[in-house]
Amino acid sequence: MNGQQMVLKLNDISSKKPGNIAAIFSLSNGYVGIQASNPINGSNDTGTLVNGFFEYSPITYGEAAAFYPKNNQTIVPVLNLRKIILLDENHHRFDTATIKDISLNLENGQLHEVYEVSNQAHKKIEMTVVSAIDQKNLSFYGIKFSFKPLSYKGKLIVDKRFKLDAISEAADIGAQEDPRKTRRVNSAAKQIIASADDREILKIATKKSNQSITIQGRSISKKLLTERDLTTSFDLTYIYQVSKGDENKVVPIEQHSFVKIKENSHQFWEKVWQQSAVMISGNDEINLALHFNIFQLNQAAGRDGHTNIAAKGLTGPGYEGHTFWDTEMYMMPYFIYTNPEIAKSLLIYRYHTLAFARKRARELGVDSGALFAWRSINGEETSAYYPASTAAYHLNGDIAYAIGKYYETTDDDEFMEKYGFEILLETARFWREFGSWTEKNGQKKFEFLTVTGPDEYTAMVDNNYFTNRMAENNLQLAYTVGHKLAVSNPKILLKLNTSENELRQFQHLSTNIYFPRNTQYAINAQDDSFFSKPIWPFQTTPNSQYPLLLHYHPLHIYRYQVNKQADTILADFLFPETITESQLGREFDYYEKITTHDSSLSRSIFSAVAARMGNVKKAYSYFSDTVRMDLIDLQGNTEDGLHLANLGGSWLDVVQGFAGMQVTAQGILKILPHLPEEWNSFEFRLMFKKRLLKFVIDQQITEITLINGDPLEVIINQKKYTLSKIIKINN
Amino acid sequence: MNGQQMVLKLNDISSKKPGNIAAIFSLSNGYVGIQASNPINGSNDTGTLVNGFFEYSPITYGEAAAFYPKNNQTIVPVLNLRKIILLDENHHRFDTATIKDISLNLENGQLHEVYEVSNQAHKKIEMTVVSAIDQKNLSFYGIKFSFKPLSYKGKLIVDKRFKLDAISEAADIGAQEDPRKTRRVNSAAKQIIASADDREILKIATKKSNQSITIQGRSISKKLLTERDLTTSFDLTYIYQVSKGDENKVVPIEQHSFVKIKENSHQFWEKVWQQSAVMISGNDEINLALHFNIFQLNQAAGRDGHTNIAAKGLTGPGYEGHTFWDTEMYMMPYFIYTNPEIAKSLLIYRYHTLAFARKRARELGVDSGALFAWRSINGEETSAYYPASTAAYHLNGDIAYAIGKYYETTDDDEFMEKYGFEILLETARFWREFGSWTEKNGQKKFEFLTVTGPDEYTAMVDNNYFTNRMAENNLQLAYTVGHKLAVSNPKILLKLNTSENELRQFQHLSTNIYFPRNTQYAINAQDDSFFSKPIWPFQTTPNSQYPLLLHYHPLHIYRYQVNKQADTILADFLFPETITESQLGREFDYYEKITTHDSSLSRSIFSAVAARMGNVKKAYSYFSDTVRMDLIDLQGNTEDGLHLANLGGSWLDVVQGFAGMQVTAQGILKILPHLPEEWNSFEFRLMFKKRLLKFVIDQQITEITLINGDPLEVIINQKKYTLSKIIKINN
Repeated sequence: MNGQQMVLKLNDISSKKPGNIAAIFSLSNGYVGIQASNPINGSNDTGTLVNGFFEYSPITYGEAAAFYPKNNQTIVPVLNLRKIILLDENHHRFDTATIKDISLNLENGQLHEVYEVSNQAHKKIEMTVVSAIDQKNLSFYGIKFSFKPLSYKGKLIVDKRFKLDAISEAADIGAQEDPRKTRRVNSAAKQIIASADDREILKIATKKSNQSITIQGRSISKKLLTERDLTTSFDLTYIYQVSKGDENKVVPIEQHSFVKIKENSHQFWEKVWQQSAVMISGNDEINLALHFNIFQLNQAAGRDGHTNIAAKGLTGPGYEGHTFWDTEMYMMPYFIYTNPEIAKSLLIYRYHTLAFARKRARELGVDSGALFAWRSINGEETSAYYPASTAAYHLNGDIAYAIGKYYETTDDDEFMEKYGFEILLETARFWREFGSWTEKNGQKKFEFLTVTGPDEYTAMVDNNYFTNRMAENNLQLAYTVGHKLAVSNPKILLKLNTSENELRQFQHLSTNIYFPRNTQYAINAQDDSFFSKPIWPFQTTPNSQYPLLLHYHPLHIYRYQVNKQADTILADFLFPETITESQLGREFDYYEKITTHDSSLSRSIFSAVAARMGNVKKAYSYFSDTVRMDLIDLQGNTEDGLHLANLGGSWLDVVQGFAGMQVTAQGILKILPHLPEEWNSFEFRLMFKKRLLKFVIDQQITEITLINGDPLEVIINQKKYTLSKIIKINN
Repeated sequence: MNGQQMVLKLNDISSKKPGNIAAIFSLSNGYVGIQASNPINGSNDTGTLVNGFFEYSPITYGEAAAFYPKNNQTIVPVLNLRKIILLDENHHRFDTATIKDISLNLENGQLHEVYEVSNQAHKKIEMTVVSAIDQKNLSFYGIKFSFKPLSYKGKLIVDKRFKLDAISEAADIGAQEDPRKTRRVNSAAKQIIASADDREILKIATKKSNQSITIQGRSISKKLLTERDLTTSFDLTYIYQVSKGDENKVVPIEQHSFVKIKENSHQFWEKVWQQSAVMISGNDEINLALHFNIFQLNQAAGRDGHTNIAAKGLTGPGYEGHTFWDTEMYMMPYFIYTNPEIAKSLLIYRYHTLAFARKRARELGVDSGALFAWRSINGEETSAYYPASTAAYHLNGDIAYAIGKYYETTDDDEFMEKYGFEILLETARFWREFGSWTEKNGQKKFEFLTVTGPDEYTAMVDNNYFTNRMAENNLQLAYTVGHKLAVSNPKILLKLNTSENELRQFQHLSTNIYFPRNTQYAINAQDDSFFSKPIWPFQTTPNSQYPLLLHYHPLHIYRYQVNKQADTILADFLFPETITESQLGREFDYYEKITTHDSSLSRSIFSAVAARMGNVKKAYSYFSDTVRMDLIDLQGNTEDGLHLANLGGSWLDVVQGFAGMQVTAQGILKILPHLPEEWNSFEFRLMFKKRLLKFVIDQQITEITLINGDPLEVIINQKKYTLSKIIKINN
């Protein structure tokens, strides 16, 4: 890696809006996220998000019905830790700061900013900010301000005490016109509970969710409010400790230093890159974007088994800080194949929400099993529009799929026995009770009715192909894993109140699921009624009318063939062995024509599938949009936070698209590369079955190196090899 | 008619809750409705509803989307005109009134009540109240209080001045848990704009809808606040004039008397009974109930072409005072066949909402035509849950159906040219643009996708049989009426920018509509996917869980075969010539088993269809529940207002069920009676093609008398007759 590809700078992003800078350059460790807001102009209240720290507010429905979720959950910005107040000798406040330079070092996690700061008396100084977040003791954040005289030399009053805005509950607002944004929740009470010259402690407590955060701020330079002589430059350094509730602080703030924070940050990133560096030779811009994406994925993930990844990570409050299926389908693969410990934590989070999921299944009239929340922070369903949430039952299958992939990759029996199998079992039970038998073409088939698949432009249909595939896989996994446990650890089955009988039932159901098919085009049908609809009039839809969801009534969209995102194609991507090459070609062509990609979850999948099909040109075109989505603000809403799923999608494209990585039904890793002509070569790393592997692919040669671990069977370009140190073959 | 069957008394109703009494004994003239609330205990603010007087409030959605209605419309209770304050000589307020007797005379429209009134000093007096509403000068209401000493003799202070509660906007509330109730809107500003000893004028103005009401109250006995000697009995009479906005008052309050009000009321009812009396010999209880139903239907209907009938009439604020398809499908037949002038006014109301309906069609992505509002007061869509409102596109066809029936019955060309055809045309255009062509079993068919039929327990399905039938009828009507106008008055076609070409297009579409069929049972299928669903587990559903909508999530209900109300059976009822007797039998049996009748619109249709099938026992059982629904509080919510559609349904049952009245495709009136064995005979009247007809049916004989008008062809028991004065045939 060369430095250029590992430092993101101001010129690397196309929109310099403060909101975009704040999101893109944010620092996080999956526990606390600090957005790179302007320290002088930024608000007092926003800019710091704590994973899982949310407030309830009542959901108001236009017309309510039984078992609609009662409460919103909204991530609460806790305080702007970066805020600083500067005054000149006449107590004129420096109230304008213009960003001159910003750079995020992806190798050590340090953020470096330079501002020109001025006041209405036209006095100017330069302020340089260096900050880092601790990646080991997750509650710590350090920030160093350096001041240099420009047109102003003289006394500088520096106030780094906590500033609290007045609480305005009236400002709390309800539903948004744009469902992708957040609602404001300002009702968390803030109180300074201790203060001294060099430190302050602030407590922030929510009223309804009963959560609290303690923030300790300390000036290394002794005083939070200080007067200095700015005739020459000087530095001031502050350390913050952000802790949830009464959590034990492993390291008290006095014993911690900014040096240590930077060190912990650097060490963490060293390990990340060691396991998951991706190098593209021939396009530095994309290389940088990919590294940035991986960097932000790692920053976003909760690591404690009680927090997950919000749709925007901790980079912004969009989607209210909720976790969606994005985690399992778009981000999990990266973690499974590079840092399975994090994948495990994210799956354990789901395990901890099982009680909510069981309750939700009962509320939906399903007498056994569990239904996970479509959007939530703590695991309780909060979605106020069931046709595109609760009806998306596929989430259950998505979680089961991720568990299957995690297990396939890690052979982590302990996880499976303690957490994974219970989820597989409860989700399989859900499908069993939720589904129904019917006769299709003279055969009894098991089907799933009134569901919504991934494509949110089609809702409440019967037999969504994707959903049925996910259910099949889920039931099959419950059977195979349960069957294995029945031999290896039969008391687990007893404990979970299941039996070989129930497992065989899952097997029976999974082999009898109905899959809709369109005979005219000889492709999988998105659902039973999809092909009876006319195709959306794309020719007469002006560009300004996209995304459709903001411009057309749902009933208008639903009565046409039009996809927001990959749906059947996503199933094809996840289950490559269910489809022939020729059908995949037809299917891709058909669905591509009717897909708007109005969801940020779409292009990455079309790219990966196109690459597999050998249509590298098309794959690369989708990938180009995907990989730099936030850097170029493709969706126009990066200021609400980064599109985390899409970041994961860009990694998928490289590894599961261009390199064609798959794991066979027999659990063998195989690759079948398709190198874009824009690249000379590319290189990536994977963790697979406790081995660290390095792949290098260029136009002539595919090379796999076993960096550590035991020899392993792999399939390259359809041929099986045993990898003991290095394999190098001609493409 | 004997008096007993024409006076409704306290003992005729099963629940004596104040709310039930207030709704059941309410007086109205389609313009103002006065609920029979307790004059002593009742609130100051509620109890008077003015047809069409509503306030907006913003609809808050849990998750909004494009073109969702922005505002609620809620009928605003204007003031309790019956409220009276009585004090004894020590100024102790008489604050308790116990109802001793109440009777509503259906022949003259007078309400007579007797209360025992007491205060905390245990003093008792008797108060008798006689009231009536003017049925000619619709703004007038008169009320006479008579006081008689019981344990108290002495001075009585009587205060009949307007009492205004403080406005509490905070009390305005949003969505209800039970969508059948109303929301509170108290934000209408009230101001007394003039007062004198004997009169007061109050102005009530809404803030957002910009409507106003002027109420003038006058004491015939000179003083609104008066002190009298209650050693012997005395009377006090008051007259109220309730006017919308600056409407011209035809008769000023000074020139009006209670005597005149009572006279106008009596004359009106005389005419109503002359045209629509129904007499059942053998069951006085049902006879009374039927008369009550007809009475309330007449009271509810707006007569000015700008107001309609709220789902609860003006008897209570339930369903927010909104008009639904109830009017056209359940109430309109009564008016068409007994008082076509009112039917015409109600249809003209729809005509006046065409601008809103055109706009709504555009919002739904339909480029031509109009889509009427599912629920509204002024014609603008207000429903906050589109799967059971906007998706119920059938409303367009329901209105067209009513226009067709009105025209068939009246030959009212003027109405058709001025109002009716434009609606037929605009609704036909809607169907044309909304529908889509598809291939079904090798044939190109026209179909309607993602719709909700009458049954609200099934939503957003394809090809709802009922909807498709209504669309077929609508397109056919537009064609035939347009075709007729092309000959008789071709400039209408030009004016409405249509052509014979467009009309032929309607004809073409109507003959190519797809109708789903279930081959296993050889019946019409409710929709494309209905029979793939499992049947609702009725055996294991406890009675306490009905109505299902209050106890199960919509997605739970939608995935089963379960009907809230008649759906395909309603289509069979409306289009008897589309179905054979044997199929009707199978179809009735099938759908009856899966229908909960959770809607009050259901039983009447099952009764009428059962009667036609000759299953009189079953018909009578459904009818018995229907005819006394509010008197026995069958649905448990009569206090929110009467179930107007069901009142109309009970009339349907007698005339279109037990008498088997239909009009053939050739426009000939036919009857085919099935007399319930509980009845000796029954008698009813119809207006048909400008004739007034009287029907008497007993076990032996069917008799039709032409009371006035020219001779007419009729079909009795399948045989054609010419009715010139009387026909009497043996059954």
